[in-house]
Amino acid sequence: MSIDLNCDMGESFGRYQLGHDAKIIPFVTSINIACGAHAGDPMVMKRTVELALAHKVKIGAHPGYPDMQGFGRRKMNLTPDEVEAYILFQIGALDAFVRVAGGSLQHIKPHGALYNQAAKNRSLADAIAHAVAAYNNDLILIGLAGSALLEMGKKYGLRVAAEAFPDRGYQADGTLIPRGLPGAVLDDVEKISENAVRLCRKGIKIIQGKQEENYSVDTLCIHSDHPDADTTAKAISDSLASRLIKVKALSK
Amino acid sequence: MSIDLNCDMGESFGRYQLGHDAKIIPFVTSINIACGAHAGDPMVMKRTVELALAHKVKIGAHPGYPDMQGFGRRKMNLTPDEVEAYILFQIGALDAFVRVAGGSLQHIKPHGALYNQAAKNRSLADAIAHAVAAYNNDLILIGLAGSALLEMGKKYGLRVAAEAFPDRGYQADGTLIPRGLPGAVLDDVEKISENAVRLCRKGIKIIQGKQEENYSVDTLCIHSDHPDADTTAKAISDSLASRLIKVKALSK
Amino acid sequence: MSIDLNCDMGESFGRYQLGHDAKIIPFVTSINIACGAHAGDPMVMKRTVELALAHKVKIGAHPGYPDMQGFGRRKMNLTPDEVEAYILFQIGALDAFVRVAGGSLQHIKPHGALYNQAAKNRSLADAIAHAVAAYNNDLILIGLAGSALLEMGKKYGLRVAAEAFPDRGYQADGTLIPRGLPGAVLDDVEKISENAVRLCRKGIKIIQGKQEENYSVDTLCIHSDHPDADTTAKAISDSLASRLIKVKALSK
Amino acid sequence: MSIDLNCDMGESFGRYQLGHDAKIIPFVTSINIACGAHAGDPMVMKRTVELALAHKVKIGAHPGYPDMQGFGRRKMNLTPDEVEAYILFQIGALDAFVRVAGGSLQHIKPHGALYNQAAKNRSLADAIAHAVAAYNNDLILIGLAGSALLEMGKKYGLRVAAEAFPDRGYQADGTLIPRGLPGAVLDDVEKISENAVRLCRKGIKIIQGKQEENYSVDTLCIHSDHPDADTTAKAISDSLASRLIKVKALSK
Repeated sequence: MSIDLNCDMGESFGRYQLGHDAKIIPFVTSINIACGAHAGDPMVMKRTVELALAHKVKIGAHPGYPDMQGFGRRKMNLTPDEVEAYILFQIGALDAFVRVAGGSLQHIKPHGALYNQAAKNRSLADAIAHAVAAYNNDLILIGLAGSALLEMGKKYGLRVAAEAFPDRGYQADGTLIPRGLPGAVLDDVEKISENAVRLCRKGIKIIQGKQEENYSVDTLCIHSDHPDADTTAKAISDSLASRLIKVKALSK
Repeated sequence: MSIDLNCDMGESFGRYQLGHDAKIIPFVTSINIACGAHAGDPMVMKRTVELALAHKVKIGAHPGYPDMQGFGRRKMNLTPDEVEAYILFQIGALDAFVRVAGGSLQHIKPHGALYNQAAKNRSLADAIAHAVAAYNNDLILIGLAGSALLEMGKKYGLRVAAEAFPDRGYQADGTLIPRGLPGAVLDDVEKISENAVRLCRKGIKIIQGKQEENYSVDTLCIHSDHPDADTTAKAISDSLASRLIKVKALSK
Repeated sequence: MSIDLNCDMGESFGRYQLGHDAKIIPFVTSINIACGAHAGDPMVMKRTVELALAHKVKIGAHPGYPDMQGFGRRKMNLTPDEVEAYILFQIGALDAFVRVAGGSLQHIKPHGALYNQAAKNRSLADAIAHAVAAYNNDLILIGLAGSALLEMGKKYGLRVAAEAFPDRGYQADGTLIPRGLPGAVLDDVEKISENAVRLCRKGIKIIQGKQEENYSVDTLCIHSDHPDADTTAKAISDSLASRLIKVKALSK
Repeated sequence: MSIDLNCDMGESFGRYQLGHDAKIIPFVTSINIACGAHAGDPMVMKRTVELALAHKVKIGAHPGYPDMQGFGRRKMNLTPDEVEAYILFQIGALDAFVRVAGGSLQHIKPHGALYNQAAKNRSLADAIAHAVAAYNNDLILIGLAGSALLEMGKKYGLRVAAEAFPDRGYQADGTLIPRGLPGAVLDDVEKISENAVRLCRKGIKIIQGKQEENYSVDTLCIHSDHPDADTTAKAISDSLASRLIKVKALSK
């Protein structure tokens, strides 16, 4: 039994520091780097790619809505063509830094509202998956376990990876409780670690209509933006190790 | 005797239309596509790449300062590291569209204030050339004839192309008369066409200190943003043809 | 019988020209100036304010979503607090130019998706009206005839003005047919002029549930972004004059 | 003997937190609020205005270059007309929040590269002072002690306030040692406190050509962006109190 641990990184912007990338990176196997739309900038992207390569961690692009002020967390109403173009732009921009540094992209994981909307909105999910497959069909597409995004990834022949969030509360339909609502974000490190182990072992149950289905999980998201993010990351890592769940990158 | 004709394209942005790309493209052999920093956006980039491929015109990236409001024409004081990162970001973003559409990048030509500053500022020119060579050392670097940019391109082993502007006035040191000053931009189509022929045949004379040196020209820039831009483009094209100067892309 | 004719102006941005403001302004009595969020920039705002004062046309702020690339026409999902803050920011920014030029603001009219969403979304409409009333309760709030926005304006004690669009197609519920759909935008100048007269005389019928209600109209929107916008503006103006409908600003 | 203590605040942006405003505000008498160009956003501006009023601290606008990614610290080459328009835009936007909250603007202090360039560049300084005087000639203009900005403020009849930085190193000509160079930013709290007292008592000596001139100081800048910023602020405050130097706002 094995699992990938991924983390959103490179979310700083100019003078603004966000996330504890250097402290978390020892605990994860894949990172998702912001591409300058909802977070990040060219200098930050370059530094974060170099950080990943120094730690032998796999790199993915983390494209989001072009809304820095809303951190890509505000729903936008874009056409599928617009979404496809934004995704290609962002993947290409990040890939430039990856290639120049001698690495290669492992995966793509959409960010924030784009990610959440693509869990349910099939035409949005289709646009994202199509952009990824068009760019490079060896890329792995990460999406919420049980989401339309993964279904569309498979449609285009992509390898997909089902993601779960040990520190987030879920709704019955498998989507995340929106930030700001009670139960959206968990604080208790022990509870988060238990969730991580449970998600690896049992996957996640989703109720659609009258049917309950179980989805297995390929990668767990670790957050880097709490002051104690490294404590949580270490606790998750230790819990998995103690249950003999191997942590390794998706492409390994 | 032959020459490349290039044109800045893809400078529209969202609702804002700029340039007469479709009318000019039959007359040119290479186009420089804005990359979303000083002009352009992902949708415009995609459309412009497809336009170029449909017309079998060679594609280059046209990176500029991150200043949409100033159209990349306002000098900014960036560090070489910042410039290098901005250039890589923009080349990568455009290249995504080019690759997905089945094409390949021929060249890089910096835009506006970045281009003009890189004619004289050696550390800036070095940063640009370094970024281009790091990304792909088969790319051709276009710069002002006699500029530091071309010198730095050669230093990094790049093929370089010397550019001249038949519709712009020159200063004695080979730099362009800044926009807004008298003589900066020529209107007379006949004069512009004569300049084009002369620049192909005789190149451009530059006085540095007490020394005058002559620089040959590999590519002429045609502007697309005048209402009569296609008339000018056709006149230049006809003048060159009548003098038996062959028009062909840099890489041919 | 009288009517106000309003027009969205100041929608240029940096190098990008949009609209034929100088050609249209002789035909209108009120203009709505973009405030740098969905269109416009400080230089454009200054010039447009000066244009209005030179033509003795009344000035309103035209705040929109912070989405220049989408021209404020893409729905965004902002909280009421965010909307209120964006509105205040934009009104204040424009008012600086108005006050320095010796004028005063007459009205506020939201733009694009914000305007359309505020026709139906009551909490969004409330946030807008609250911001306007807080800034200056002498301001007139322009909204779609029959909209939630006007209702909320009245709730806060604002004078409101019901707007109609002679060149746009309507849905049965009184909202505009979205751009891009058939019938959304009319081209026929004669038809548009007839619509203008009819809207002044008879107002607009809206079906809500099983009930049909009639709403009178205080101001008609003239568009400035067609190449022949001045022809249309003149035709509307002439039609109104020939039917003895007086054209005058809302505050007169 | 008395002095104003000012601090740049409201520099957060969306998800990005910057500065320890709430911890520092008890120690200062005036704050300079970023206006959404180099830092800040409408929500942050609103919150920061409310914070200032709750603490009975005087409010100023802190306009900067439109360069969020560079935090307004990168020199830009704008025309005086552009600078004037940007300044008016930003003052007006902030003033909307101040007025709605029942306060009034006390002063204007330019930020970063704009501030530093306006210390020497007379046409830039003229544009800033002209914008401020045009907006409201009761506003106090804060600039570097001995700067062209203060001279231009006086020319337009503004009350001006000379600022000094107890935690920054100075060059002989009275300008700050640029960030990034040795001696630019001091860390030693005791040294900073001594500087504060000395600057109040003796002002600052500036050598221009062969002449040395002494400039008195009206306000000291306290920084809020170090983790220990409140310790420094308290130390300065205590040192001034122990030397019987009264701390009070400029307008009191």
